[in-house]
Amino acid sequence: SLHRIKASGLKLQLCTNETQATRENFVRKLRALGFDVSVAEVTAPAPAACRLLRERGLRPHLLVHDDLVPEFAEVDKTNPNCVVLGDAAENFTYANLNEAFRLLIGMEKPVLISLGKGRYYKETDGLKLDVGAYMKALEYACDVQAEVVGKPAKRFFESALAELGVPPEQAIMIGDDIVNDVGGAQQCGMRALQVRTGKYRPSDENHPEVKPDAYVNNLAEAVDIILQHL
Amino acid sequence: SLHRIKASGLKLQLCTNETQATRENFVRKLRALGFDVSVAEVTAPAPAACRLLRERGLRPHLLVHDDLVPEFAEVDKTNPNCVVLGDAAENFTYANLNEAFRLLIGMEKPVLISLGKGRYYKETDGLKLDVGAYMKALEYACDVQAEVVGKPAKRFFESALAELGVPPEQAIMIGDDIVNDVGGAQQCGMRALQVRTGKYRPSDENHPEVKPDAYVNNLAEAVDIILQHL
Repeated sequence: SLHRIKASGLKLQLCTNETQATRENFVRKLRALGFDVSVAEVTAPAPAACRLLRERGLRPHLLVHDDLVPEFAEVDKTNPNCVVLGDAAENFTYANLNEAFRLLIGMEKPVLISLGKGRYYKETDGLKLDVGAYMKALEYACDVQAEVVGKPAKRFFESALAELGVPPEQAIMIGDDIVNDVGGAQQCGMRALQVRTGKYRPSDENHPEVKPDAYVNNLAEAVDIILQHL
Repeated sequence: SLHRIKASGLKLQLCTNETQATRENFVRKLRALGFDVSVAEVTAPAPAACRLLRERGLRPHLLVHDDLVPEFAEVDKTNPNCVVLGDAAENFTYANLNEAFRLLIGMEKPVLISLGKGRYYKETDGLKLDVGAYMKALEYACDVQAEVVGKPAKRFFESALAELGVPPEQAIMIGDDIVNDVGGAQQCGMRALQVRTGKYRPSDENHPEVKPDAYVNNLAEAVDIILQHL
């Protein structure tokens, strides 16, 4: 399906909330699975956070997965004036959470940037709490609202559109997550299809707030329909 | 001050949100500091939780401090159908939080009982996230609302009154925490004094929701005033 999109001349951007690996490693995994994808075709929360940090002169304390740290290599991290929170997994220790909390509560105006707000996800050894749960813990303790830079943030889809160089009305999002993919893209002015695979649940079709422009059974069908309409 | 209260014939109950130790250890510490206090004079969240568990036939999975576990010695903990959360401190590990989360999310109707909802507290080595922060994390991940059994829960003050054997209008709360002590007791129908010591902050006097029946400079002054009014 990806190959057919590219062969048609359409531009393609992958929008992921992956924060346990650099884009380089993410692309390496996809290529190993046979997908012809480059780093420039991936929009991910960490680079979006780096842009935001640069724009606002923020120096982060990182509470993220070890494998994500290289994404922040170019960022000044001395004397931190904000906390960047990702899915830190094993780095979500009592000591690390207290450290991030102390930095925030010590700031005149605490700035917490979260690389997503997922509740949980599934791994081979079971369900795991996602970054959103730890974000809520720090929000409550510091009485602060986190700025979320991953999906469904409008900014995030704007970054992807900027990479593509197209306005939102000429782009279409295909995703399995009713809120993060479909809702986020629509709020940015794009149309959005929900695939009935992956995270999709039949109850999504009665979602109180988000309604996709159309449902498709899978990615291949989405591509069929899009190419027919060209 | 405690001695003067007891000598006057008034009944006394200590209401604490301490969840890092059993009442026995809590009382041992107070006695070592010279306070003449017995275990029966202490109302604490863990025994309140035990009553609630018994009443509702709940079997808890405990995510609490090691030193609190003996409070739950009599409680059936096999095949858990709820999670009891306390200030687990070093037991707030990534693995333990995921375990509590998996149990909750696997329940048809998740039941989360929290022994408090404090944001943070201070220890000699710095500020620490309190049980409320972890409660918020699990609430968000499981889309559930925790039942709080410590202060300021109405039930908690009702337990203390039951121990004293007096109706709320004949009891008075003395505390330093505007929301947990003063607000909680007032919602239960008691009068409440705020001492200008400990957690007290001058900004408490402009609290948008809670107004103590009176301010006193310290516990000794509170006791003076109460004894004068007898």
